[in-house]
Amino acid sequence: MEFWFEFASTYSYPAAMRVERLTRAAGVPLVWRTFLLGPIFKSQGWSDSPFNLLPVKGRYMWRDLERISDADGIGFRRPSAFPRSSLVAARIACRYHDEPWLPEFVRRVYQANFADDRDISDKTVIADCLSHAGADAQSVLAVAETDEAKAQLRRQTEKAATLGIFGAPTFVVDGELFWGNDRLEQALAWYAAAR
Amino acid sequence: MEFWFEFASTYSYPAAMRVERLTRAAGVPLVWRTFLLGPIFKSQGWSDSPFNLLPVKGRYMWRDLERISDADGIGFRRPSAFPRSSLVAARIACRYHDEPWLPEFVRRVYQANFADDRDISDKTVIADCLSHAGADAQSVLAVAETDEAKAQLRRQTEKAATLGIFGAPTFVVDGELFWGNDRLEQALAWYAAAR
Repeated sequence: MEFWFEFASTYSYPAAMRVERLTRAAGVPLVWRTFLLGPIFKSQGWSDSPFNLLPVKGRYMWRDLERISDADGIGFRRPSAFPRSSLVAARIACRYHDEPWLPEFVRRVYQANFADDRDISDKTVIADCLSHAGADAQSVLAVAETDEAKAQLRRQTEKAATLGIFGAPTFVVDGELFWGNDRLEQALAWYAAAR
Repeated sequence: MEFWFEFASTYSYPAAMRVERLTRAAGVPLVWRTFLLGPIFKSQGWSDSPFNLLPVKGRYMWRDLERISDADGIGFRRPSAFPRSSLVAARIACRYHDEPWLPEFVRRVYQANFADDRDISDKTVIADCLSHAGADAQSVLAVAETDEAKAQLRRQTEKAATLGIFGAPTFVVDGELFWGNDRLEQALAWYAAAR
């Protein structure tokens, strides 16, 4: 199963916190696929998150995310800035997607943004997440700045659009899309039913 | 629990087909509340369903609705016109919301639209749904045309907006909103936890 996520995406937070646990319990292989929603939103004519463009929807989403975080027992504090740029974190997660420290790094970044209200566009925050996940922060950050790492994330974002992805998180199983944190169980069931 | 639905709304279809069964099993009182999404979408700057305005999202929704209908064992055929005007059906469901035939009428209208590809803006189709539900079709249709019935639906749509409703279906429990067919279980759990 592919887990397509965007570090700035609110509902990707609870999904990222539970996807490894649930896929492992179900015996489903997990592939981490980060991408940028910005270019996809732009192609839909949006210059900002729909949760900012539509305040009534935004109000609902923050309350809903708080309820989900409570139910899942993960921390939540509404970020003082939203959305925060996920560019640095995404370049890293794209370039190093199969490193053993990657899942913990992803979770640390989400917690920094949505539980601790830290600025994930700040490289010192990202370095902190890398170190806590067991990676060599300075060398990883340096590689993430290379043209190759930048191009890799661009290609992956284009791939997301090609797959028909329009929001995050999205789970992909055998070409079937399941959009939203609340569809993880359905994606797992689809995987099991096909095998 | 209040069940806010719109007859033209795709995800309201599976919700309408199961909401009475699930609330009854959980011992939760159910109030049927129909409204029109059109005026709410208009206030967000949309002239059409977002599923038409954003084709990539629309493609996903139709596939998703097909999967849900399969899983729930309810029929599904993609309507040849979307969205269809729900005005007549909504005036009836608003005016007669506490009649014993109302739940069956609601389900018949949804099946006509999303399983049988019938035009629910056509009064002969609505009359058929009313008769099958056990109502006096001609007298109900006549009452639905009165100024009082029209005003009642307008007030209810304004009430939806006041509650912060921006999409359908929405379940409301003690002022808490749960948006989407996939949130029915969460709304029921919220009701139980509060009592």
